[in-house]
Amino acid sequence: MENTGNLSQRALTNLAVTCPMRTAFLGALSSLYHATDNPAGAINLGMAQNDLICNEMLEKISSSTPLREVDLSYGDPHGSKRLRGRLAGFFNTYFNPHTPVLDNHILVTPGAGAAVYQLATVIADVDEYIMVPSPYYGTFDLDIRLNTGIRIFTVGIFHTETLSVDFVLLHRAMEKATSQGLRVKAILINNPHNPLGHREDIKLFIYFASRYNIHIIFDEVYALSTFSPFLREETNQGDHTSVRDKLAESPFCSALAVDNVPQLIDPKLVHVVYSLSKDFGLNGLRVGFIIDQYNDYLKQALILTSSFSYISTVTDRLVYNLFSDTVWIDKLIHTNLQRLAASYIRTTSFLSSHNIKFFPAQSGHFLFLDLRDDLRKRCGDIPTFSDEADLLNDLLHNGVYIAPGEGFHTVEPGFFRMTFSVEWNTLKRGLQILYHTLRSEPATHANKV
Amino acid sequence: MENTGNLSQRALTNLAVTCPMRTAFLGALSSLYHATDNPAGAINLGMAQNDLICNEMLEKISSSTPLREVDLSYGDPHGSKRLRGRLAGFFNTYFNPHTPVLDNHILVTPGAGAAVYQLATVIADVDEYIMVPSPYYGTFDLDIRLNTGIRIFTVGIFHTETLSVDFVLLHRAMEKATSQGLRVKAILINNPHNPLGHREDIKLFIYFASRYNIHIIFDEVYALSTFSPFLREETNQGDHTSVRDKLAESPFCSALAVDNVPQLIDPKLVHVVYSLSKDFGLNGLRVGFIIDQYNDYLKQALILTSSFSYISTVTDRLVYNLFSDTVWIDKLIHTNLQRLAASYIRTTSFLSSHNIKFFPAQSGHFLFLDLRDDLRKRCGDIPTFSDEADLLNDLLHNGVYIAPGEGFHTVEPGFFRMTFSVEWNTLKRGLQILYHTLRSEPATHANKV
Repeated sequence: MENTGNLSQRALTNLAVTCPMRTAFLGALSSLYHATDNPAGAINLGMAQNDLICNEMLEKISSSTPLREVDLSYGDPHGSKRLRGRLAGFFNTYFNPHTPVLDNHILVTPGAGAAVYQLATVIADVDEYIMVPSPYYGTFDLDIRLNTGIRIFTVGIFHTETLSVDFVLLHRAMEKATSQGLRVKAILINNPHNPLGHREDIKLFIYFASRYNIHIIFDEVYALSTFSPFLREETNQGDHTSVRDKLAESPFCSALAVDNVPQLIDPKLVHVVYSLSKDFGLNGLRVGFIIDQYNDYLKQALILTSSFSYISTVTDRLVYNLFSDTVWIDKLIHTNLQRLAASYIRTTSFLSSHNIKFFPAQSGHFLFLDLRDDLRKRCGDIPTFSDEADLLNDLLHNGVYIAPGEGFHTVEPGFFRMTFSVEWNTLKRGLQILYHTLRSEPATHANKV
Repeated sequence: MENTGNLSQRALTNLAVTCPMRTAFLGALSSLYHATDNPAGAINLGMAQNDLICNEMLEKISSSTPLREVDLSYGDPHGSKRLRGRLAGFFNTYFNPHTPVLDNHILVTPGAGAAVYQLATVIADVDEYIMVPSPYYGTFDLDIRLNTGIRIFTVGIFHTETLSVDFVLLHRAMEKATSQGLRVKAILINNPHNPLGHREDIKLFIYFASRYNIHIIFDEVYALSTFSPFLREETNQGDHTSVRDKLAESPFCSALAVDNVPQLIDPKLVHVVYSLSKDFGLNGLRVGFIIDQYNDYLKQALILTSSFSYISTVTDRLVYNLFSDTVWIDKLIHTNLQRLAASYIRTTSFLSSHNIKFFPAQSGHFLFLDLRDDLRKRCGDIPTFSDEADLLNDLLHNGVYIAPGEGFHTVEPGFFRMTFSVEWNTLKRGLQILYHTLRSEPATHANKV
């Protein structure tokens, strides 16, 4: 024990938890562009950072006076009632909830990842399972497993050709797990999907959870990045439709908007996660939310431990101020959707005209690329995840990082997630490097990352 | 399970964890003064909030531009290298460390409570023990036990008459625990002490931890509130001694300042906790620190889970800006110590002249009152903790809240912690209510809190 620092078994177990998404990113980190440390580094198109509304956000933040005297003393660990009330108004405006959201339905967390972690802790115990259909956002590996001893039960349920969910496969996997005595306590769904960027058939998932009496968590961090209604009018000049009307055309449907949830499932089992990181480009602020409209006992348990992730009054006050200007918020959402649509159009035009395959998306800040053919051309008929990693190394070496499918637990190698919520000149350069790398011979690196 | 929201055993266990300090505070909460909700409520002298430097802090914060473009994207979950480097300089200036503190010795947490919680998770497992000599800061009950299943092993080791630590008793308790097969993994010490407000004999505690090869955590959140060198010159007019020279006279000694720790104990077992909540009156900002100079493996484990308590870039940037003005910080510490000393002198003068017994303090924002005689006068020879609670109810009813000894796990009833880091007019009113309550007959309340 001496050489390990005399740590708890919990800590040693944590250190052994694997997360291919994190491994890939950490492996690439030293090669990535950094303003001071690595100005010649690779363009990062592998992380979901929304740069498109950066200027507007920074300007507004500067003019939002952040602190009052009362903020020097203790605030509420799970967000002030004031902030939660303001956000309740926001959800009621943009998420079309069946039952209005109230301040006491909301808990503030340091990001969506922490929200998933906190929900996992109150839902499942050591050696119990949370089901996560793949491909899925790979950091869930850490959010679910660290500190908790909970296991992930994953099933590849997406037809890679049609992109539709195979619910027959999902039910079959669940029946098998149950018959083997596995205790599955919840299912976790990204809605809209990450990395696929499309809406989910949430009623079928709710039915599924109800059928097995398990919790269902909807991670909706890309809810207001559903840009598909904006695709027909890239510049949007002279369009007088309000954002809310546009969103009504949207294929996105929040779990909050489902009619009569209590008739479909015990509503205490349904939880929604949101954050400001993606739709508002505020990864740095660490503001996430758990929205739960029915399970008071669960919220009581979460409030008890929220002091370990206590929100700063500075952040609380700043976000309250930002969301108090509802006209500005509305305009920002509109601007963001227009820019996402514009960037999506440019990106997909480039990809199509250069014969790079991708899955069309409706939402999110990324595209899931299907580079399986390219991988086969490079490596022969049956490429491995090691071949996928080699391609990533070539891309990095040439100057661009995209996130490998292995990080999303794809069932076969050759998929990559590419972020397009990036300023066009940088993005174009990244796309060109991608294209040239795919069309050239594999490199032989002396030192592979 | 239905009616409990289908929660994990972990959550149900958490909900059953007791914390007398929290219970007392929540019981009093609805009676306490609140600017809008309860303007006629009781004065709160039961919580350690430092109001004495509130104006200076608020003014400085307003002039510290909080955010830059880079802050919109992901920061570091355990604090930016920039912030940790700045704080390393602060610790090197004011804590007199034997080995200079470096940025990678520091992890930022959302407060000292979260720091203790995080250390507990990597040190002990379910059903293992952390030793906390009593009386102790009662919220440790939650910081150590929630989510972890760790137990608290407490021993009343302070002679109530002499206030010195009885190490013979401490060793005896440890030997007994060990012989009974209890797995004690650490000892947790407040230095300076809370609620007693004096320095600890830290070398003896380090020797103790070494003797049993257990971790030792020093919670030093009142480090720079050691006001005793300022007691001789209340107004401090014309005093040109620097704060650092004054601090050199101070009875406080940080665990960081102990010579040659590696010769006393495996230094991987020694951890220091600090925060900005007390010495800088910033309870609301939730900025705490773990300082560990030798245990890299432990820090690696903590960094892994720090994303669940991810610091906001807004707070990170603000604190960096505040601590970059080292002249201002120095002056603020000086001002704070002068004001604490002045408030201590006024408070103790009042207490002495009104025959209210207290333990003299050197540090902190509070005094531990010995109201055992008063309790005996009210209730007869052998008062109980229920009598202590009755006295608290009378105090609350008359308009002042002080924190009952039961919350600090005192071995006998009749002690209370009273905060004096409060503006004098409010404090004086609270003291007068305290005096009149002690000198009058116990009330008979229809509804006790």
